[in-house]
Amino acid sequence: MDRLACVIVIGNEILSGRIRDSNIQFLAVALGRVGIRVKEVRVVADDEAAVIAAVNACRFIYDYVFTTGGIGPTHDDITTACIAKAFGVPLHRHPEALERLTRYYGASLNPARLRMADLPEGATLIDNPISQAPGFRLGNVFVMAGVPRVMQAMFDGVRPGLQGGPAMASRTVTAYVREGDLADGMTAIQTRNPTVEIGSYPFFRNDRLGVSVVTRGYDADAMATASGEIETLMRALGGDPQPVDLAAEDGEP
Amino acid sequence: MDRLACVIVIGNEILSGRIRDSNIQFLAVALGRVGIRVKEVRVVADDEAAVIAAVNACRFIYDYVFTTGGIGPTHDDITTACIAKAFGVPLHRHPEALERLTRYYGASLNPARLRMADLPEGATLIDNPISQAPGFRLGNVFVMAGVPRVMQAMFDGVRPGLQGGPAMASRTVTAYVREGDLADGMTAIQTRNPTVEIGSYPFFRNDRLGVSVVTRGYDADAMATASGEIETLMRALGGDPQPVDLAAEDGEP
Repeated sequence: MDRLACVIVIGNEILSGRIRDSNIQFLAVALGRVGIRVKEVRVVADDEAAVIAAVNACRFIYDYVFTTGGIGPTHDDITTACIAKAFGVPLHRHPEALERLTRYYGASLNPARLRMADLPEGATLIDNPISQAPGFRLGNVFVMAGVPRVMQAMFDGVRPGLQGGPAMASRTVTAYVREGDLADGMTAIQTRNPTVEIGSYPFFRNDRLGVSVVTRGYDADAMATASGEIETLMRALGGDPQPVDLAAEDGEP
Repeated sequence: MDRLACVIVIGNEILSGRIRDSNIQFLAVALGRVGIRVKEVRVVADDEAAVIAAVNACRFIYDYVFTTGGIGPTHDDITTACIAKAFGVPLHRHPEALERLTRYYGASLNPARLRMADLPEGATLIDNPISQAPGFRLGNVFVMAGVPRVMQAMFDGVRPGLQGGPAMASRTVTAYVREGDLADGMTAIQTRNPTVEIGSYPFFRNDRLGVSVVTRGYDADAMATASGEIETLMRALGGDPQPVDLAAEDGEP
């Protein structure tokens, strides 16, 4: 059985374009490696109603929800309070979080930083080896920092506890043939191999059009068969298929 | 009045992490420049139900919806058919789209490529100066390619027809002070300046912690006042505020 996840990115800085998000790709790859597929991503504003709506729209549908952003000490860090409201539980001062912040900040533990120890009732801590202020898990929702380095360190701690499904096998072949020339034959291959996902990604490089075709599936044999048929089709069209992903290198989906 | 937009990114290649999306940031910045704020982004799979649900969840809430991806000639390009279903209108062969594809492809206009001329009834074309296959607009939904270069060229054509709201004034100041030391004073500044959005973004550079504070608002005077108060606060904490955005340069929201 598939294990499915949703990523909710909380941050005006992504919606304004000030920052190009990198957490989505990191989580997509890292979760895929443990057999969890990201099926949806939402980017929402630092806005209470928007965060609560997104969390409650997703946490009943997906096995896992991962949020990034909005758990720092400043007025615009509202994620923790929103998660408590989404679950209908109060915030309380978490003893272990308080201890970690006290140890790390000492006399600098002002009211703003203390707020980072106020977590929803029932939350368990997610370690933050970088700057101590913890993330937390509540039910199937994992609440992590937005700063990529901190988020990645938090995810390292979370990973061993995640329950993945079977791994997907995947193969990519690339040739300098035009996607539209490949399309009708590829549709037939997709129809013959219904358990395999075939994704087609055109690119343009050195004044030449090409296409990378990604096949993915839980049945490794079926996946390999479909990929082989794609290669044969590429050759029939005069291409010289290679096991590389030039479309991804170009960043062109 | 704010003019608000939602961006819907359609593509398994983003959800699998194979590609790091760049269309979100491009559209966020480009729309912001014409006075349209991106308030939400969704990334959904190449899956009919998911695309239809996202489009219909967003097109009644936001002034504009922009989709990227899934309008090519291959079996996994399902966006156009999904938009038609979301609006409850049939697909028909669009005469002008057919003419453009015929002119561009000539004898190579096979059934797969012809499919790109089948658009929802009522759609108007969005020019594609790169590879001719057009995008389209239906109601307040703009359907564009996923390949960034093509999407950006399509957006250039769309831009003059968009109706923006007032422009937001914005200013950023950065200092090597710790975000948590700034937080309580910044909350007071936010409370005194309720029409201004104050965003706080920590970063770590050369072994030093710092913070970039972004103030944004429709009232340029109020925005400048709030930004000035942030500077004063940074100085009081021993910082030397500069009008740069080191947090964004580090890619750390």
